[in-house]
Amino acid sequence: MTEPVRGFAEAEFRARTARAQTLMENAGLSALLLTTAAEIQYYTGFLTRFWESPTRPWFVFIPANGDPVAVIPTIGVCLMAKTWITDIRSWNAPDYGDNGIGLLADALCEAVPQAGRIGMAHHIESHARVPLADLADLRGRLGGRCLTNDAAITRTLRMVKSEAEIAKISHAARIASRAFERVPQIARVGSALGEVFRAFQCLCLEEGADWVPYLAGAAGQNGYGDVISPATDEVLQASDVMMLDTGLVWDGYFCDFDRNFSVGEPSQSISDAHQTLLEATAAGFNVARPGNRMFDLYAAMAGVLGSRAGPGRLGHGLGVQLTEWPSILPTDDTVLEAGMVLTLEPCISTQTDKILVHEENIVIRET
Amino acid sequence: MTEPVRGFAEAEFRARTARAQTLMENAGLSALLLTTAAEIQYYTGFLTRFWESPTRPWFVFIPANGDPVAVIPTIGVCLMAKTWITDIRSWNAPDYGDNGIGLLADALCEAVPQAGRIGMAHHIESHARVPLADLADLRGRLGGRCLTNDAAITRTLRMVKSEAEIAKISHAARIASRAFERVPQIARVGSALGEVFRAFQCLCLEEGADWVPYLAGAAGQNGYGDVISPATDEVLQASDVMMLDTGLVWDGYFCDFDRNFSVGEPSQSISDAHQTLLEATAAGFNVARPGNRMFDLYAAMAGVLGSRAGPGRLGHGLGVQLTEWPSILPTDDTVLEAGMVLTLEPCISTQTDKILVHEENIVIRET
Repeated sequence: MTEPVRGFAEAEFRARTARAQTLMENAGLSALLLTTAAEIQYYTGFLTRFWESPTRPWFVFIPANGDPVAVIPTIGVCLMAKTWITDIRSWNAPDYGDNGIGLLADALCEAVPQAGRIGMAHHIESHARVPLADLADLRGRLGGRCLTNDAAITRTLRMVKSEAEIAKISHAARIASRAFERVPQIARVGSALGEVFRAFQCLCLEEGADWVPYLAGAAGQNGYGDVISPATDEVLQASDVMMLDTGLVWDGYFCDFDRNFSVGEPSQSISDAHQTLLEATAAGFNVARPGNRMFDLYAAMAGVLGSRAGPGRLGHGLGVQLTEWPSILPTDDTVLEAGMVLTLEPCISTQTDKILVHEENIVIRET
Repeated sequence: MTEPVRGFAEAEFRARTARAQTLMENAGLSALLLTTAAEIQYYTGFLTRFWESPTRPWFVFIPANGDPVAVIPTIGVCLMAKTWITDIRSWNAPDYGDNGIGLLADALCEAVPQAGRIGMAHHIESHARVPLADLADLRGRLGGRCLTNDAAITRTLRMVKSEAEIAKISHAARIASRAFERVPQIARVGSALGEVFRAFQCLCLEEGADWVPYLAGAAGQNGYGDVISPATDEVLQASDVMMLDTGLVWDGYFCDFDRNFSVGEPSQSISDAHQTLLEATAAGFNVARPGNRMFDLYAAMAGVLGSRAGPGRLGHGLGVQLTEWPSILPTDDTVLEAGMVLTLEPCISTQTDKILVHEENIVIRET
């Protein structure tokens, strides 16, 4: 498989922006204010691991008409200037007197009419990456304009992927698949789980990951206690089941799936539980087509799992984040559309305090 | 060097909590509400890479007296139960009806008297990892209790590290040092920068990193444009200077420093600039002692750099985050104390659009 092209054509960012502006008009918004890595990357292509530093806030807003405006720390101007964004305003952060709020307020007041409404992500799976004091300060400087909810516009747009986005996620998933195939090279009876975690991240990098933001896993007899733990000091034992769940990134896009490995021969109980998970995944896959709803996937998968279904959702969206809207839940009525990328992630209880989880990544196609 | 012990003694978490409670009393706070990975890790020891998923909010609060209370998604209960926290309340997230806010409000109303004040991080370098709509909902459910600023309590406490914390940061830094020493094995004329980035992350893992949350860098003739970029498609050329800046993690603690490599012989201009950076670092180091202030470090380092000083701060704290309070800035009057861990990070302009940056990690000791 050849690598997809890195980045996106400017036309794709323009199309995302235009779609946002249409939804903004419908929602009565004069601007959309973005503060998080995922939101800003989605509209601008600005890609950096510097979000790891909490020191500086970053702002991009989409006006009702025209291109997005970046209001960012000086340290990011060089990189932002390589994207399609041309209106870049900067301040020398951190500034204890005014860490960008004055500059942002001025830019918003320039772009948004008096009494205009400025949307920010407000709902589930979001947060504002701005100090609360600065957010309050911003509200006070907008002179009649108000900060309000964004009608979930960015979340809605991000849910359906373009072919270029699908190619990146698919490439990330193939990298992870190759790394998973090599796990027998790095894990056996007596291996320390911490060393397996390290070696597995190296396999992901060797196979082509840009980086490995997420790895969790566990090992134990007849299952494990949870799916979010880092490595422990444990050493693999014969007939342990070991699970590795990775979200690796290629060109800013995640895959997110796990594999379960048996250390030597699996017990009948684990073999049966694993088979049930594969059947639940297939049941979800069979109803994963345009027009069906997320709760249909839930019903299909839960139907196979029966009373042994683990708690919580049975899958979710993914893309520029490890997990994205929507969720495979009985309460999620999102209609599936071609271009959605989802995980199918059934969880089964193997004994009172243990579970087994399988996970696949799929894309919804017209057919 | 032997590995430090993983985790912390329960007494250390109890001491952190008790110190917070003293500062809370001084600030008139009846509870401290924590929502981010760094805050929650600091008081509880809860360590997971699952923060990468934005779906679920996580809450821990410290009451005026007694142990912290966790209000968290079911998926995290097993791992939280391994920490010293015993009061763990959970809901099955994501829940579209109420994603934990009702449970949190009930717990806070139980622990905080009517008209009590609940502190949250409000200031620079912080954010609330909660959807804005949920935060508004929470405010409405507190029945006379108010959410207010946390008087920077957690930031203040985290600034001075314990010996156990210093041992972890130091261990992380030694791992990075060994990886940097091996860079000549992975980079030469003709190496693709993307492959160097991948291989360097493997070196960090091989040398003992748990994971590599941060890597940025660049390569170019006579310097580079910025210090926050991911790898480009560039290929190393003779007499390029290549910079790699890593924040790797060991047991939840970061190091954060860079190294500059010359591809073949460096130019006189780069040698001179690099020498100036080393001298600026030494000048900062020489005044980095208890009683001096952050602006003294700035003055000492800027004095060496002169008019070629890059914009912005010349270093910062680090610990459970890649960058932490305080900053080496002319406006930062924080008094240095034994136990602070800082970066010294001078930046020099090498030509109009290029810089060179050197970075070291140090700990402040009484002597």
